[in-house]
Amino acid sequence: MNVTLRGRTQHFRTVTFDAATNEVVLIEQRLLPHEFKLVRTRDFKETAAAIRDMIVRGAGAIGATAAYGLAQGVRAFRGQSLTAFASHVRRVYETIEAARPTAVDPVNAMNGVLSVMSTGEDVASQQALALAAAEEFANEDVAHCQAIGRLGAKLIRNGTNVLTHCNAGWLAFVDVGSATAPMYAAQAAGRKFHVFCDETRPRCQGASLTAWELAQQGVPHHVIADNAAGHLMQRGEIDLVIVGSDRVLGRTGDVTNKIGTYTKAVLARRHGIPFYAAIPLSTIDWNLKSGFDIPIEERHEEEVLGAWGVETRNSKRTHVRIANPSSPARNPGFDVTPAELITGIITPLGIFKPRELWKRRKVLQAGSAAL
Amino acid sequence: MNVTLRGRTQHFRTVTFDAATNEVVLIEQRLLPHEFKLVRTRDFKETAAAIRDMIVRGAGAIGATAAYGLAQGVRAFRGQSLTAFASHVRRVYETIEAARPTAVDPVNAMNGVLSVMSTGEDVASQQALALAAAEEFANEDVAHCQAIGRLGAKLIRNGTNVLTHCNAGWLAFVDVGSATAPMYAAQAAGRKFHVFCDETRPRCQGASLTAWELAQQGVPHHVIADNAAGHLMQRGEIDLVIVGSDRVLGRTGDVTNKIGTYTKAVLARRHGIPFYAAIPLSTIDWNLKSGFDIPIEERHEEEVLGAWGVETRNSKRTHVRIANPSSPARNPGFDVTPAELITGIITPLGIFKPRELWKRRKVLQAGSAAL
Repeated sequence: MNVTLRGRTQHFRTVTFDAATNEVVLIEQRLLPHEFKLVRTRDFKETAAAIRDMIVRGAGAIGATAAYGLAQGVRAFRGQSLTAFASHVRRVYETIEAARPTAVDPVNAMNGVLSVMSTGEDVASQQALALAAAEEFANEDVAHCQAIGRLGAKLIRNGTNVLTHCNAGWLAFVDVGSATAPMYAAQAAGRKFHVFCDETRPRCQGASLTAWELAQQGVPHHVIADNAAGHLMQRGEIDLVIVGSDRVLGRTGDVTNKIGTYTKAVLARRHGIPFYAAIPLSTIDWNLKSGFDIPIEERHEEEVLGAWGVETRNSKRTHVRIANPSSPARNPGFDVTPAELITGIITPLGIFKPRELWKRRKVLQAGSAAL
Repeated sequence: MNVTLRGRTQHFRTVTFDAATNEVVLIEQRLLPHEFKLVRTRDFKETAAAIRDMIVRGAGAIGATAAYGLAQGVRAFRGQSLTAFASHVRRVYETIEAARPTAVDPVNAMNGVLSVMSTGEDVASQQALALAAAEEFANEDVAHCQAIGRLGAKLIRNGTNVLTHCNAGWLAFVDVGSATAPMYAAQAAGRKFHVFCDETRPRCQGASLTAWELAQQGVPHHVIADNAAGHLMQRGEIDLVIVGSDRVLGRTGDVTNKIGTYTKAVLARRHGIPFYAAIPLSTIDWNLKSGFDIPIEERHEEEVLGAWGVETRNSKRTHVRIANPSSPARNPGFDVTPAELITGIITPLGIFKPRELWKRRKVLQAGSAAL
């Protein structure tokens, strides 16, 4: 999406590939919203490190980074021996896999690249196929988000006040985003609307990343404390909630997402405000039987006890301790919103009621082929 | 309540008076939870400045500070002329009144002192009466909080997990606090329970002040992000919610309190968890007809866009900017929880259903006389 640097507006993807130099080009997300910087990884080890060190984050974005990183490693091989090549490819794959061992997206993305590569008969053709497959993966991620945008945009009319939580924006994908896709599509259609960004403590992705995205794109918005949404709903100032998701259960329609999502869904129900989750098809988990089977990651208490920011007086990045120094914290990272509180799931193939997913599983599992 | 300094546990009130030196002694609340320091104001102008600069905050605490500040000013008068004395008293009163012009507590407290003083026949006896009346005001604030504690403690059993929001603790009163009073009384009765402190963005009074109080008092507790309470309720980890209030409507039972309180009440209702507000009688507004008549103060957006804390690396107090620098924020400071969501109002005279307050108004308005 758009980023304006020194008065000049340019289009960026979160991750791209420079075939001439064999480098993966990433937005350094750890510096946002305070600084915009591109990072070029010179080899697959640097790409793996970028995933591990969270220069890039978000399911779609790390999937594409892994796909490009595999192609990058594959293309660096010199020689004709298919045996030596296969062992090199395995080393690249395992290095990138180890960068974020609990994430499923890098592995799925790399498996897709491997499967396309395997149709090549010699090293050179496999190298060319790897890059083509990685580009295809990234483009498909964008196409999925654009389809979410086309379908979801009709929910946003002139004057609509949208609430979103955390960052399910283009920074979490290759471009466009999931929860933000309907907003960007509605903006492209000329509609005038406004977005409230939940701060999203403890890591504040709403105040930092989503607010930055919307500001760059020129979408009118305000940051609010997570505490304020209930009051704003009570006063009729919110018309629609759209969030992303880390995992939607195909069998039940339950939605796992950043801590605080469930609270917003409960409030939306009380006030009769529609509540949507926007997701690519890869977010649907067809195996788990109940949202309550999902183990909720308890993250480090320091996230709750303090905050990262830049010092007001000198713009230096720093961490402050907010809480009483001798107090412990609890820090569940995610919560589960039961299907009954969800108006609809916006997917690239349509907007479905949560309970409809399972009935439509054939189409949804076939997935991208249908797009 | 208790504060442990260099291994030694002492009892403190938020505000006391040193008759020997004619000084008001205050806890410097702006340094908490990172530093504990007492401030002595040498004259009524310094006392007014302490109220204005928020060295002391909270309805009960600033009421008592104003009462003591008036006595302090009155006692500094040298001479016998009742006319000169009266004009001096007026100047002291107006100086302290101007320190926090929108607050009602300092004015009510000083009017009480003046009314007692006026029964004295000469300067010396009026000076003595002023101090006695200020001490009486402070002691009554404590007695009210203790009565809230005695009545509310029965809600807390062994194993109860209590949630509280913001700081309605002893730091906001002369001692004991309102929402915290049932906790301290249950602790004194030997009960073993646990408290979750909502961080309470944007000013984080829960993470800083309430957590500090509970830690000093040895009450087991955890700080949580405001986003986490819904998830914890869903998992059965919260049994009871107790909050304070800035204004309870005597006619309806609606409760105004720090932003985010309404959200917790909505969540508590969904999960069948009892939700109480604990208040001294002075918090009841007998005039307003509906909670929605209360103007909600929109505070400065910088509170939402950043945070105060101490730097992790060097313990220096600093402000960090968290949000995207070009994004604006909305910052409603309070919200209104409708009576239907409130299980009970814990007052010094009993625990009432919100709709009962109006029926009992004779007794409640007679107030402290009945205690």
